[in-house]
Amino acid sequence: MSSVRIALDVHGGDKAPEVNIAGASMALKQLPDDLFIEFVGKKDLISKLTASHDLPSSRVSIVEAPGSFGMSEKPSTILRKKDTSLYRAAERVKEKEADALVSAGNTGAVLAVALFVVGRLRGVERGAIAVPVTSKNGFTVLLDCGANAEVRPEHLRDFAKMGYEYAKILGRSNPSIGLLSVGEEKEKGTALTKEASALIAEALGSAFVGNVEGRDVVYGDVDVIVSGGFEGNIALKSIEGVAKLVGDLLRKSIKEAGVFGLLGGLLLKGAFSRLKKTLNPSEYGGAFVLGVKGVVTKAHGSSDELAIMNAIRVAYEGVKGGLIDNLEGRFSKA
Amino acid sequence: MSSVRIALDVHGGDKAPEVNIAGASMALKQLPDDLFIEFVGKKDLISKLTASHDLPSSRVSIVEAPGSFGMSEKPSTILRKKDTSLYRAAERVKEKEADALVSAGNTGAVLAVALFVVGRLRGVERGAIAVPVTSKNGFTVLLDCGANAEVRPEHLRDFAKMGYEYAKILGRSNPSIGLLSVGEEKEKGTALTKEASALIAEALGSAFVGNVEGRDVVYGDVDVIVSGGFEGNIALKSIEGVAKLVGDLLRKSIKEAGVFGLLGGLLLKGAFSRLKKTLNPSEYGGAFVLGVKGVVTKAHGSSDELAIMNAIRVAYEGVKGGLIDNLEGRFSKA
Repeated sequence: MSSVRIALDVHGGDKAPEVNIAGASMALKQLPDDLFIEFVGKKDLISKLTASHDLPSSRVSIVEAPGSFGMSEKPSTILRKKDTSLYRAAERVKEKEADALVSAGNTGAVLAVALFVVGRLRGVERGAIAVPVTSKNGFTVLLDCGANAEVRPEHLRDFAKMGYEYAKILGRSNPSIGLLSVGEEKEKGTALTKEASALIAEALGSAFVGNVEGRDVVYGDVDVIVSGGFEGNIALKSIEGVAKLVGDLLRKSIKEAGVFGLLGGLLLKGAFSRLKKTLNPSEYGGAFVLGVKGVVTKAHGSSDELAIMNAIRVAYEGVKGGLIDNLEGRFSKA
Repeated sequence: MSSVRIALDVHGGDKAPEVNIAGASMALKQLPDDLFIEFVGKKDLISKLTASHDLPSSRVSIVEAPGSFGMSEKPSTILRKKDTSLYRAAERVKEKEADALVSAGNTGAVLAVALFVVGRLRGVERGAIAVPVTSKNGFTVLLDCGANAEVRPEHLRDFAKMGYEYAKILGRSNPSIGLLSVGEEKEKGTALTKEASALIAEALGSAFVGNVEGRDVVYGDVDVIVSGGFEGNIALKSIEGVAKLVGDLLRKSIKEAGVFGLLGGLLLKGAFSRLKKTLNPSEYGGAFVLGVKGVVTKAHGSSDELAIMNAIRVAYEGVKGGLIDNLEGRFSKA
């Protein structure tokens, strides 16, 4: 296999372009030699910023894209802004010049270029955003996390198939799949989940365990949880909210415990930093847009260099693991 | 006003009847003198158990109900089991012999007796489960948390009106209301949320702030969040899951920090117990079934005596605050 070429959207994200380039530099040091990074963005700026990083010249290149797309611009307008780093990076994947797109930009815009520039896989009607959420077992893949506010039962079945292949890439050899609902019993749920449940069982056989509940996202036993984009997004954001609240409460409690609290906090510094690291979205490695003809990884908008590095790492693993071929195989059978 | 009479389902809950009676005993000690508790259940057993609690005889009575309803029985069958403590307690409210029903029993069964024995308020098409969830501002009321898997826009509007009155009873003088969706912008969401948004704005005026996201349940600024029962339940259970995970991670991190960790944990014991207390569902005081002709409080199935006491306390406050009259007034106007 030739090198794994990743097109990096240099100007996407709240802390771009600096952390994007720093993250790429980390990735080039830590990942295998066959990783190649295309920096897509403003050439002069990139040349200047990369100069301080001592990058291996045989493993990097620059693709000029003079425009950038704002974090709060209306996502659909990206499709008319063909000179942006995001659009251009997606084009590189579409043109088969790159294997993967990595961006920390505007989620809706990344989704739009994934679906309409990179393009959907044959047999897939809807793309989905898949997020490996930190959980009791390390992580649980939740999808769809917001690409589709409204779905039909067949879409949930397709998400289940995509989530299954994605979990395998992430190292789960026999992934188990649950359908997000309001009770484990078969008769619980909506008309949509009941119909979807039958379709998923047909498509995935014993890998499908049936309904799971909200608490199973971080405290359950399944590898993959399938949902519509509306409730998936609500679950994901609810979880983010609690992680923030817990951080606040811990800090406050320690402060109120006075000098003993300070000492205790000092003694537990390592423990707290591990907790924070576990709950830190930068550690996830980024969300995937599944169902398109290339690996598309979306890092959090507030990504730091570690988050960018991890997004590049999972994109690399997705390419190496043959994610797109696996998905193509699964959907061409359908 | 005469005394506040609460019908307590003595046999509902995982730890019933002991903790139910202990919780009632706590409530009788801590709440004002006009609280009166009817213990509904097996008379002989109740007499025996209450004997050790030194209860004020003028403020308690026993209502015989020989049957009990299991935590995992099919909820709808409660309506045929009229001799159970739960059904009988609901009847006391319907007969106007009691002002409120408090139960830690099977959620679906409590909902069923609330709707079909106590009965819906005129003008209310669907009852809702409202839960005050621990949040940045103390608590945020989330409803519906699971009474209705599928709803129409008018139902969400009614939930908003009910949540508004409930938040006032809980001490928020000018409650603000948000609609749970996938983005704050007006154009985000589903056909359902968009239609509901217009109806809620019409009904509540400036108290309605528009769309909110999952993270706002515990980390937002609104007092009340309205949702369908499907996504409300998913948000609530997702939050419960993270609270459990954080507990596990903290324990593990402290343990792995060795002797320093143990010492630090000891020094921060107070801080951790405050954190645990804040995240503890027993502190919430229990969920309300709103939209019925009586105060119905559902304590968590795993309630301890503190949780039962708190459920009795909020039921007491609901009666004192005139929750049912307020709701009746609001819905008769519609």
